[in-house]
Amino acid sequence: MDIKSYLKERCRVVDGALERYLPREDDLPFNLHRAMRYSVFAGGKRVRPILMLAACEAVGGTVDQALPAACALEMIHTYSLIHDDLPAMDDDDFRRGNPTNHKVFGEATAILAGDALLTEAFILLSDDGASAGVAPVARLQVIREIAVCAGSRGMVGGQVVDMESEGHRDIDFATVQYIHTHKTGALIKASVRSGALLGGASPGQLDAVTRYGEAIGLAFQIADDILDIEGTTEEIGKDAGSDEARGKATYPAVIGLAESKRLAAELVDRAFEALSPLGAPAEPLRQIALYIIKRKS
Amino acid sequence: MDIKSYLKERCRVVDGALERYLPREDDLPFNLHRAMRYSVFAGGKRVRPILMLAACEAVGGTVDQALPAACALEMIHTYSLIHDDLPAMDDDDFRRGNPTNHKVFGEATAILAGDALLTEAFILLSDDGASAGVAPVARLQVIREIAVCAGSRGMVGGQVVDMESEGHRDIDFATVQYIHTHKTGALIKASVRSGALLGGASPGQLDAVTRYGEAIGLAFQIADDILDIEGTTEEIGKDAGSDEARGKATYPAVIGLAESKRLAAELVDRAFEALSPLGAPAEPLRQIALYIIKRKS
Repeated sequence: MDIKSYLKERCRVVDGALERYLPREDDLPFNLHRAMRYSVFAGGKRVRPILMLAACEAVGGTVDQALPAACALEMIHTYSLIHDDLPAMDDDDFRRGNPTNHKVFGEATAILAGDALLTEAFILLSDDGASAGVAPVARLQVIREIAVCAGSRGMVGGQVVDMESEGHRDIDFATVQYIHTHKTGALIKASVRSGALLGGASPGQLDAVTRYGEAIGLAFQIADDILDIEGTTEEIGKDAGSDEARGKATYPAVIGLAESKRLAAELVDRAFEALSPLGAPAEPLRQIALYIIKRKS
Repeated sequence: MDIKSYLKERCRVVDGALERYLPREDDLPFNLHRAMRYSVFAGGKRVRPILMLAACEAVGGTVDQALPAACALEMIHTYSLIHDDLPAMDDDDFRRGNPTNHKVFGEATAILAGDALLTEAFILLSDDGASAGVAPVARLQVIREIAVCAGSRGMVGGQVVDMESEGHRDIDFATVQYIHTHKTGALIKASVRSGALLGGASPGQLDAVTRYGEAIGLAFQIADDILDIEGTTEEIGKDAGSDEARGKATYPAVIGLAESKRLAAELVDRAFEALSPLGAPAEPLRQIALYIIKRKS
């Protein structure tokens, strides 16, 4: 398969659905909806929704079954970026080369746009019209899966520990692992598990997809940490070396660059191994993993 | 019925359930869970959860059926207060006589504690263990009801318009009505409608409770606006006259104090009228309305 065209096509499908699901800019309050849309359509690669669709198909489901939940997850991811960028948090002026939400709409609207995107995700997840015939029990399972992974013991928890660790030069490996498995890993895991649940996965299939998700979630983050050191500002969309300048808890900072690269490769192997029971329908999941780890080349 | 003992007893029931449902302070990340609990247990009167329980019983349901959703709604209410108080928003140092969340835990943690409380609400709403035998379809309806009322076309929308109107002396009646029906009214309506849905309401019962909720949601807000003018700082838990000082869009500012009092009384009449088909089981809903409007006396 041609992974680049596959990702481009899936990105188009997700963007089209987000366009339909998000409140329109001419619905009151205009400015809030403009702010929500600004960040959702600021050039995201839609990694999480694409993973959800691929996981759904890998267990025998269809794109339609997972598309609303995939968009909901992207809304949650976007809210987390808006709040992360706030002056009280990472205080970033740019993301993916564009001014951050609070630089364009002001801090108050940015906070509320984040809140509204998080809430909109659950509106979409509980929308009968968007459910594509998925059983109510499975839909509740997916809501719970996503909420747990996004909450205080998932993504938000990772963000808190990341923030508390910033500037501490003596962060240990366990803390870096906690931050990464929670801050970014939890939502990646939620994306593939939700896709599998919506596609009607058997317990064995769900387990395979879960182990894949855990491995690649961590691999993606390590790849990001490496890119922050080796990439150019243009490639990263923010200043190169900014993690180090900020004293961020990263893998290269704690276990070194070479060992980080070795670990990322090992995690991809582990992800492939996990998928073996799923056979050919899991091929996109394999290709996505390879592509994202190697996206520099 | 003795409404004061009723409210006190229900408050105790809700507090006990919140204690059980919220993440513990000795669960990682400690500080985040401490911040979440700090604001949830900062002396709230539990009006929304108590309304939800009363609405559930008014249509023939039980307290157990609505208790988890009632706690979820209180978490959403609490998150909205934490974010409202932030320096970028209302910049309040005190709420109910206590230092606000960001004054105790810092701005970043306060933002994340709000995010986590909003998310925790949906964890609880989608928790099978807490569902007390309510059918999955009804649970999805309640999740949607609450999410819509809390989102960009509900509570958050009202907050945005309120913020944008601040300091504009020429706010019209329609804008004040938009702010109040959304910022506070939406969650009140969600509380009684969710209670009725969880209690297995007929369409007629749901309609009665909805009209009651719309009327008292607005009445409560007008009563609050009046209290801000006539109450003492001790009664209000914040500086008296602070709405006026800030140029807040309030009913007394737009239609005058006397007309505001007349409107509040009319809304309570309307709420009583709406409840007439429900008979005696709706008595607590009637008493709650009267008590809250007259709480100064």
